Amino acid sequence: MHVEDVRWKPGITVSSLVESMKHSGFQSIELAQASKIFCKMKQSNAKIFFTFTSNMITSGLRGFFAQLIELGIADVIVTTVGGIEEDIMKASGEKFSIGKFNSDDVELNEKGVNRVGNIFIPNESYAKFESLMSGMLEKIYAKKSRWSVSEMLKEFGLMLNDKNSILYQASRKDVPIFCPAITDGAFGFHLYMFQQDHPDFIVDVVKDFENILMVTSPDDIKGIIALGGGVSKHHAILSCLLNDGLDYAVYMTTSHQTSGSMSGATTSEAKSWGKIKDDSDAVTVIGDVSITFPLAMMNSLEILNREGLIKV
Amino acid sequence: MHVEDVRWKPGITVSSLVESMKHSGFQSIELAQASKIFCKMKQSNAKIFFTFTSNMITSGLRGFFAQLIELGIADVIVTTVGGIEEDIMKASGEKFSIGKFNSDDVELNEKGVNRVGNIFIPNESYAKFESLMSGMLEKIYAKKSRWSVSEMLKEFGLMLNDKNSILYQASRKDVPIFCPAITDGAFGFHLYMFQQDHPDFIVDVVKDFENILMVTSPDDIKGIIALGGGVSKHHAILSCLLNDGLDYAVYMTTSHQTSGSMSGATTSEAKSWGKIKDDSDAVTVIGDVSITFPLAMMNSLEILNREGLIKV
Amino acid sequence: MHVEDVRWKPGITVSSLVESMKHSGFQSIELAQASKIFCKMKQSNAKIFFTFTSNMITSGLRGFFAQLIELGIADVIVTTVGGIEEDIMKASGEKFSIGKFNSDDVELNEKGVNRVGNIFIPNESYAKFESLMSGMLEKIYAKKSRWSVSEMLKEFGLMLNDKNSILYQASRKDVPIFCPAITDGAFGFHLYMFQQDHPDFIVDVVKDFENILMVTSPDDIKGIIALGGGVSKHHAILSCLLNDGLDYAVYMTTSHQTSGSMSGATTSEAKSWGKIKDDSDAVTVIGDVSITFPLAMMNSLEILNREGLIKV
Amino acid sequence: MHVEDVRWKPGITVSSLVESMKHSGFQSIELAQASKIFCKMKQSNAKIFFTFTSNMITSGLRGFFAQLIELGIADVIVTTVGGIEEDIMKASGEKFSIGKFNSDDVELNEKGVNRVGNIFIPNESYAKFESLMSGMLEKIYAKKSRWSVSEMLKEFGLMLNDKNSILYQASRKDVPIFCPAITDGAFGFHLYMFQQDHPDFIVDVVKDFENILMVTSPDDIKGIIALGGGVSKHHAILSCLLNDGLDYAVYMTTSHQTSGSMSGATTSEAKSWGKIKDDSDAVTVIGDVSITFPLAMMNSLEILNREGLIKV
Repeated sequence: MHVEDVRWKPGITVSSLVESMKHSGFQSIELAQASKIFCKMKQSNAKIFFTFTSNMITSGLRGFFAQLIELGIADVIVTTVGGIEEDIMKASGEKFSIGKFNSDDVELNEKGVNRVGNIFIPNESYAKFESLMSGMLEKIYAKKSRWSVSEMLKEFGLMLNDKNSILYQASRKDVPIFCPAITDGAFGFHLYMFQQDHPDFIVDVVKDFENILMVTSPDDIKGIIALGGGVSKHHAILSCLLNDGLDYAVYMTTSHQTSGSMSGATTSEAKSWGKIKDDSDAVTVIGDVSITFPLAMMNSLEILNREGLIKV
Repeated sequence: MHVEDVRWKPGITVSSLVESMKHSGFQSIELAQASKIFCKMKQSNAKIFFTFTSNMITSGLRGFFAQLIELGIADVIVTTVGGIEEDIMKASGEKFSIGKFNSDDVELNEKGVNRVGNIFIPNESYAKFESLMSGMLEKIYAKKSRWSVSEMLKEFGLMLNDKNSILYQASRKDVPIFCPAITDGAFGFHLYMFQQDHPDFIVDVVKDFENILMVTSPDDIKGIIALGGGVSKHHAILSCLLNDGLDYAVYMTTSHQTSGSMSGATTSEAKSWGKIKDDSDAVTVIGDVSITFPLAMMNSLEILNREGLIKV
Repeated sequence: MHVEDVRWKPGITVSSLVESMKHSGFQSIELAQASKIFCKMKQSNAKIFFTFTSNMITSGLRGFFAQLIELGIADVIVTTVGGIEEDIMKASGEKFSIGKFNSDDVELNEKGVNRVGNIFIPNESYAKFESLMSGMLEKIYAKKSRWSVSEMLKEFGLMLNDKNSILYQASRKDVPIFCPAITDGAFGFHLYMFQQDHPDFIVDVVKDFENILMVTSPDDIKGIIALGGGVSKHHAILSCLLNDGLDYAVYMTTSHQTSGSMSGATTSEAKSWGKIKDDSDAVTVIGDVSITFPLAMMNSLEILNREGLIKV
Repeated sequence: MHVEDVRWKPGITVSSLVESMKHSGFQSIELAQASKIFCKMKQSNAKIFFTFTSNMITSGLRGFFAQLIELGIADVIVTTVGGIEEDIMKASGEKFSIGKFNSDDVELNEKGVNRVGNIFIPNESYAKFESLMSGMLEKIYAKKSRWSVSEMLKEFGLMLNDKNSILYQASRKDVPIFCPAITDGAFGFHLYMFQQDHPDFIVDVVKDFENILMVTSPDDIKGIIALGGGVSKHHAILSCLLNDGLDYAVYMTTSHQTSGSMSGATTSEAKSWGKIKDDSDAVTVIGDVSITFPLAMMNSLEILNREGLIKV
């Protein structure tokens, strides 16, 4: 395939731009390849593991992720707890605002504003979250005292009502949300407070590992869309590895493989572990997910919509 | 401004996606800001310095750059010589192809293929370039023996005929191309060979520094679009600094400021030098230019087209 | 302070090199600052939270971390489960080997070799780990059925005998090891298998959040050494935030703040959250921890040893 | 080779630390490999091309580079003009100071301070440089009117007297300094001013390309130490390519190959071009050169000193 010159035409669509990237070079080629693999996952009826880090929920990607669940693009979700907290906050009407990377952080602290990159979260959003959590925990505890994480998150999702919420959409569509480090946030603090008053209250993370192992099987065709790295990415590929590995894999990250971290680990490295089958379609796209993912995925949605594989 | 959830709609345009990025987070916000500043440059009738590295000409961005020159987006170009060579090769019909980052480089070498990231350039393209260059040098030497770089590149552009060529479009539109390190490539080798036979042949780089200083003035409103880093970026901001600094600046790069390099130097750092005026509109977007630049600029083109500020 | 020229002298020590870096520039300055803050933590008798990612235990840093625990540099450890598994494997005599980043991963998989960057782990190390784990779980289950993670890891450490093991040294020195995502690895799989046969076996992660909150208090002077990012880093700063924030902080990472991730979040950002007190000594060092950390810390150990603050 | 645990011993030397890195992992292994290749270059009597970017001269690495020239480690230097300016400034007594990355750049500008990462350069250093340059240009113009860059820089070096100056040491040791983009800085501005008054004054960059080609031959064993990227790195490998390629290559950079830039281009990619011979010893080390280079090179100096291959 030859390099071809990219050109703008008035009214150009996202699809048209991504298609031209196939012939451009560097990460644009990898991005176009990711878009193609997203399509293949759905075309082959793969079970799709979708993982992302909390900061993406802080951003406007949250609504897009919820839409993808609604459209049937994600079958299993693995994430970290900060995003779950913020999804609930936003579903309850809290607003985050656009700020700056180079802020005066001491001044922000005095104003009760918490910074995540160039996004600001007010302290009061956390304060309101506390009373929300306590109410929700009371409700589920009334049913039983021992909960696996994904079961609990499903119940919480059913208590929300926001089409842009990942918990809401996942509960409606029976998409399990796994969160192996469930205590690593304000959420964990509220679990702890609740357990102080209810010592028999148990969050059973071992049971949830069984749940993620059982969510698929070696016979399933399996794909992963891993946005960012860390525990979410690792947990999804681990559970697929224990089910004979992945057929399709797209990693989108800003990390590089040179430090040997999970966040930067490539789809190639995963083949050595049997995490990805040797003949799989796999690609790593380096770049900020807030740009690369909507671009690649929206092109795939156009194609899948044309093919009748998603219902808009 | 609040964070807002990103959503896909069938048939979504590039413009619509970039507009939604304003409310998303992380680099998508910076990208949307870049797009806005591109518009402001043109709306304020600024003199626009456009700089890029050679590898972008290796990629399909070349045709897009040529189109931008044609549309009047770039008033002054600064680049490195590898891109100039490859622009001439491509204008003469040479084809580069899409390859892989993880290639067997020893095998490629045996096959006569040179790799630039995930793009392959055949040896023969360089071989043909040699005879092209020698013909072009003969022609200009017939006129005079002492040439500044931008003068020479203008003559070369006039000898080409390819709407996707940056040299061709720049010559037609009287946009000077500066290349301070003109000998750093096969181009330099051919200049050397030519000088062996014509000892009075002189490439006057000092004269060309005068030219870039005179291309603008302190009175002009000035903007820069710097893609990637290195000498091209530095040279353009230096010449603007000596003309009282920039009013608008967009840096798009994969480098970070943490190593103190020019490639990673931010628009903020530039303010300490007076390279950018303190009240200027300036933004740094981190990411692969093959993705971020067409996305941001195509949205600007839509707006400028609507406003009648470019002629399609 | 002026920039001063770095010079080599025959027999130069690590201390001498790090001291000269104070006057050099870019990340070397930040590294020298980190070394100084390490000393301050110990000099002020701070409670030191030490966090790292699993891949560092895959590398030879493991023995250095164990030595730091032995020397009293770390009071609380937070990490991910992969490193715990590998610490146990190595303590049981397993050997990992030095490989290459650009390996043929399909071939490695056929040979039963798993790659982590440029380190190779044989499949059989995981196989042996299985029987180890099952024996250790039987032993602790004989005592009781409900375990918090840090309690369990303490018991495991007492069963090992290897001065280079972090679990061994931590158990001996009563340094708790927290691991919020305890199921995210082979370890989790063995917990699951064990729970299949012993349904009342519970790993109580909520209790462990209580434990990490109680390990310190608002009255303590507190410091953090965060190597890499992810859940380990976040969990330690969260527990310090809930205890009125940190006095000293050193982040060492290859990630940048520009993507808004926890891994790249700077010590400045942490101030907006109250995670780090406004007047604290804090620095972020960008670079591969396998190089930057031993360099900075070994200089601190020399100083602390001279001052009698550690016992060699 | 197995992974081995790193340990600190009181009084540990740089050599001892670097030797232990061989068995550690990730970039520490690559760094130890770089150190070994530095030794091999000298042991095999290779012609060593040494390239670096200007910001390294801004930092304290300048004195170390000068020392390497004095010790006979560098046979050919390629760099950018900013570093040459600053070397002359420093040799004339100017002082730069240590600052902060997160500075208030508008305030710095008002104070007449220019920032390069976390280093500050006063405006007055540039002002004094102007009169220095004009004196030096008068002197060389008195000899002849047409100068190649390396010839001119040699003359300038002879006018300095500072053991920490790269120009001074290079002139004394007959090590040519090439600077293909000689006009890209204040230096270029002063060349332009001088040419205004002396129109026959010519800086012949084409002649200097002949000079760098002739500085070595296909018969020489050749090595490159490329610190950072850009034109300096490219120019040195180009001139070696035209002399049949390199036998040894160490690239040290913060850039990654994923964007297809020269700064991030790996030693593997260079093999496809024949820039590095297929059987060569080559390594890429990712990290800030202000840390990685002194560490690796000082270990090599210890070894070479022991072997009597350098004279201290």
